[in-house]
Amino acid sequence: MSEEEYETSTTMRIIEFEKPELRAPVLVQGLPGVGFVGKIAIDYFIEELKPLKIAEAYSTYLTLPDGDMGVKVEANGTYTLPKYEFYAYHENTPQIIFLTGDIQPSPWGQYRVAEDVLDFVAGFGCRTVIALGGYSTPQNVEAVYAISNDLSLIDDFKGRVKIARGGVVKGAFGVLLGLGQKRGMNCLGLLGATRGIYPDPRSSRNVVHVLADMLNLSVNLTGLDQNIADVESKMKRLRRIQRGVPMPQEGSREGEPPGAYII
Amino acid sequence: MSEEEYETSTTMRIIEFEKPELRAPVLVQGLPGVGFVGKIAIDYFIEELKPLKIAEAYSTYLTLPDGDMGVKVEANGTYTLPKYEFYAYHENTPQIIFLTGDIQPSPWGQYRVAEDVLDFVAGFGCRTVIALGGYSTPQNVEAVYAISNDLSLIDDFKGRVKIARGGVVKGAFGVLLGLGQKRGMNCLGLLGATRGIYPDPRSSRNVVHVLADMLNLSVNLTGLDQNIADVESKMKRLRRIQRGVPMPQEGSREGEPPGAYII
Amino acid sequence: MSEEEYETSTTMRIIEFEKPELRAPVLVQGLPGVGFVGKIAIDYFIEELKPLKIAEAYSTYLTLPDGDMGVKVEANGTYTLPKYEFYAYHENTPQIIFLTGDIQPSPWGQYRVAEDVLDFVAGFGCRTVIALGGYSTPQNVEAVYAISNDLSLIDDFKGRVKIARGGVVKGAFGVLLGLGQKRGMNCLGLLGATRGIYPDPRSSRNVVHVLADMLNLSVNLTGLDQNIADVESKMKRLRRIQRGVPMPQEGSREGEPPGAYII
Amino acid sequence: MSEEEYETSTTMRIIEFEKPELRAPVLVQGLPGVGFVGKIAIDYFIEELKPLKIAEAYSTYLTLPDGDMGVKVEANGTYTLPKYEFYAYHENTPQIIFLTGDIQPSPWGQYRVAEDVLDFVAGFGCRTVIALGGYSTPQNVEAVYAISNDLSLIDDFKGRVKIARGGVVKGAFGVLLGLGQKRGMNCLGLLGATRGIYPDPRSSRNVVHVLADMLNLSVNLTGLDQNIADVESKMKRLRRIQRGVPMPQEGSREGEPPGAYII
Repeated sequence: MSEEEYETSTTMRIIEFEKPELRAPVLVQGLPGVGFVGKIAIDYFIEELKPLKIAEAYSTYLTLPDGDMGVKVEANGTYTLPKYEFYAYHENTPQIIFLTGDIQPSPWGQYRVAEDVLDFVAGFGCRTVIALGGYSTPQNVEAVYAISNDLSLIDDFKGRVKIARGGVVKGAFGVLLGLGQKRGMNCLGLLGATRGIYPDPRSSRNVVHVLADMLNLSVNLTGLDQNIADVESKMKRLRRIQRGVPMPQEGSREGEPPGAYII
Repeated sequence: MSEEEYETSTTMRIIEFEKPELRAPVLVQGLPGVGFVGKIAIDYFIEELKPLKIAEAYSTYLTLPDGDMGVKVEANGTYTLPKYEFYAYHENTPQIIFLTGDIQPSPWGQYRVAEDVLDFVAGFGCRTVIALGGYSTPQNVEAVYAISNDLSLIDDFKGRVKIARGGVVKGAFGVLLGLGQKRGMNCLGLLGATRGIYPDPRSSRNVVHVLADMLNLSVNLTGLDQNIADVESKMKRLRRIQRGVPMPQEGSREGEPPGAYII
Repeated sequence: MSEEEYETSTTMRIIEFEKPELRAPVLVQGLPGVGFVGKIAIDYFIEELKPLKIAEAYSTYLTLPDGDMGVKVEANGTYTLPKYEFYAYHENTPQIIFLTGDIQPSPWGQYRVAEDVLDFVAGFGCRTVIALGGYSTPQNVEAVYAISNDLSLIDDFKGRVKIARGGVVKGAFGVLLGLGQKRGMNCLGLLGATRGIYPDPRSSRNVVHVLADMLNLSVNLTGLDQNIADVESKMKRLRRIQRGVPMPQEGSREGEPPGAYII
Repeated sequence: MSEEEYETSTTMRIIEFEKPELRAPVLVQGLPGVGFVGKIAIDYFIEELKPLKIAEAYSTYLTLPDGDMGVKVEANGTYTLPKYEFYAYHENTPQIIFLTGDIQPSPWGQYRVAEDVLDFVAGFGCRTVIALGGYSTPQNVEAVYAISNDLSLIDDFKGRVKIARGGVVKGAFGVLLGLGQKRGMNCLGLLGATRGIYPDPRSSRNVVHVLADMLNLSVNLTGLDQNIADVESKMKRLRRIQRGVPMPQEGSREGEPPGAYII
């Protein structure tokens, strides 16, 4: 059994496309979770800032939400394994590595995957980790909450960011910050308050807004509002599908399967 | 702990019976899944073409459907662990390795098992992987859908194969294509549309028909139709059993257990 | 991490008390399962033949029935981890190693544990493996069924042992025979037919009777019948407990907990 | 993959703050379990005796109660991964290492975690292990039960400690004693009888009282009674929260999230 194969079974397989030189980049992670707040936010940054895609990562621990394995089929008939994607944005101070992904690691793989991520970004000199996520609450849904091992990171944002004062944050958000802290890194988590389990682009906008100011990122808020409108339109469309209302599908030919789950 | 023992616990134990020289064979995998479409199709190819059995493989990850381990008892009182079987068919261009099996790997073993399969066939120079499976849909059950990282593979079959345009394909079908793609292999998945969870030999026939033409395989469709009739007769018999109708069992002596599950 | 520690986490820790010289001993395994048939049978052999205890084995894969870990408390306040026990009986031809245990391995540990058992007995020159178990059936509960990769083993017992003709045998019974077969050992499984999930000493007696004759073991059937009567009396007592009828406990002092599960 | 990384995935990462010289210290473990008896008792010893914190330990096997991973958020917005904490108390004969923690290991990590704990304390010359826990019973809730591989340890406490006479003790309590016994250590488990699943400080007090006398620990029972009153007051408060009665939170500013679970 070669070293490469062994890595396949227990660590991420990272495929690097570019190896830019970076100066102490900040890792910003956004993955699917409560209200998809972190995932929508990170995808917006990537869409808006067009950072350089530097790597993809695969792992036996990146399972589908039901714990099973498989591939996602794209609209053109190609497909991909669940993966993490790393993007470098160096036209900024500080420089940033964005990490986005389709899914969360399985519970028993959370530590291994987070360590692999931290190893990878440590190779670029990363010393600061920021996780974006959502916080489920029935009230005050405009708020952004923070947890951190270095609350000075949000000193200038006290009017806009509230400090979380208890509870448990589960999943890759918490594990990344927890293991980053163990390595002595500066760690910050930003949690957009959200009402429910549905994708909440408004909560993501609040997170994006705070983080953009925090990291000196120039993002076009008009684009962001359009993005929100798009997502809300998609949500409406999803609800129609859930109610069983048929609708035409772009590019579909008669007799083709809708873009639904192939089990 | 010897190397051999270690392999038993985390990788497949592959027992090779023959080591034929092959020229860039195509791997064709069919395992139990939706409608047993892929499994019935592969078994038909093996029955019809009589390829050379070259290897069997065992793994702690090849679990029974309920996640437990055990052996299957044959009609003569012998028994076998869950296994994969590899067959080589070299009287054809391209040459083919057929992979069939009793069961799917457990979710946490899918990557390890697929890597082991790809390692094994890579040893024969295999660069192309085809997975056969089923696609559950309430309509258009005569269709065959394709996913691929190289859709030119189905250029000549556009009238007979539809491109899948979304969704997720779970299990060994998806993982084999996903990890094959990561190795830079040409990968194609053929999914026979099927209505339900029962074995669907008609859907398998559609897949067999397409694949036979694609790979220049000369298969006797008469045999195939007879095979379908047999399976449908077995299904009828199964439904009788499910309804509790007693029936005589071949070769059974009085007082013997029916061929049912020994728990 | 030392070698010893590593072994603790993935392989059995075997503690050897005696290292007798044996000539091609037969391994006979009985563990809790359907009707406790195999477990009662093996315990009877051990009680009756008083073989030499040669080893105990512990493993992270020997879990309690609910998948949790813990210790069993004895009537004198001491306790033990779940364990396997090996006994050697050399005053016989063939010589025998009896393997008994409190529990079954967890599903994901079945292969590892069975390989460890086979490695251990291979060190004594063992080439034949016999597993004892139960077979759940509503009828013909006096029968003993066999599965084997070498049915000549039961040639002389055709009138008393029926060949199983289908189904699946789960758990350590099946896995031991399956992996033993892969090593080229002679393997035989004896399944006592039993009606239910309750301990069935009558079914065990049938298995004991067949195996004793098969291996030239001189066992006192009077003792066996007494043993059955005892177990049946215990069963009656258990049913009283299940119905909530209080009863005095030997050696108990007022205010002490009954011998029930401490959760 | 470096050694350090490998350790992260399968063994505890132990961070040592102090390395005191100890003479044959006794390990005393208390973790969340039945009635939180062991956890409350150990926390009381730590609060009262103010031992030296010598180490923290992290592990992929220290999962949240639902099997998921994450971090606990403190009232000041910082956070911590689930962890074990070791405290040394050397102003006593015998010297003691207290082990407390937020949670139990996952079932599949129990052996690995207990071995890691035993390795760590063995480095200080520890030869005696005591586990504190609860025992669920509807009656006689003032009793303290013991299990031990060396019942002479409780010879002088026969009037105050009853010997457990059967059953199973699950979780880290049982596994620590079981694996400690395998290493030839002197092992004792003290189980405070308790009625229910709610935190039971009265049962903890009984355990504390016995153990303090056993180990010559001078603990202030007044403080203990106050502690019980506090916990009972917190319980009342918890029940108010469970009934949905709102209450002011210390240090909270308007619009802030209550100290509830962030999922």
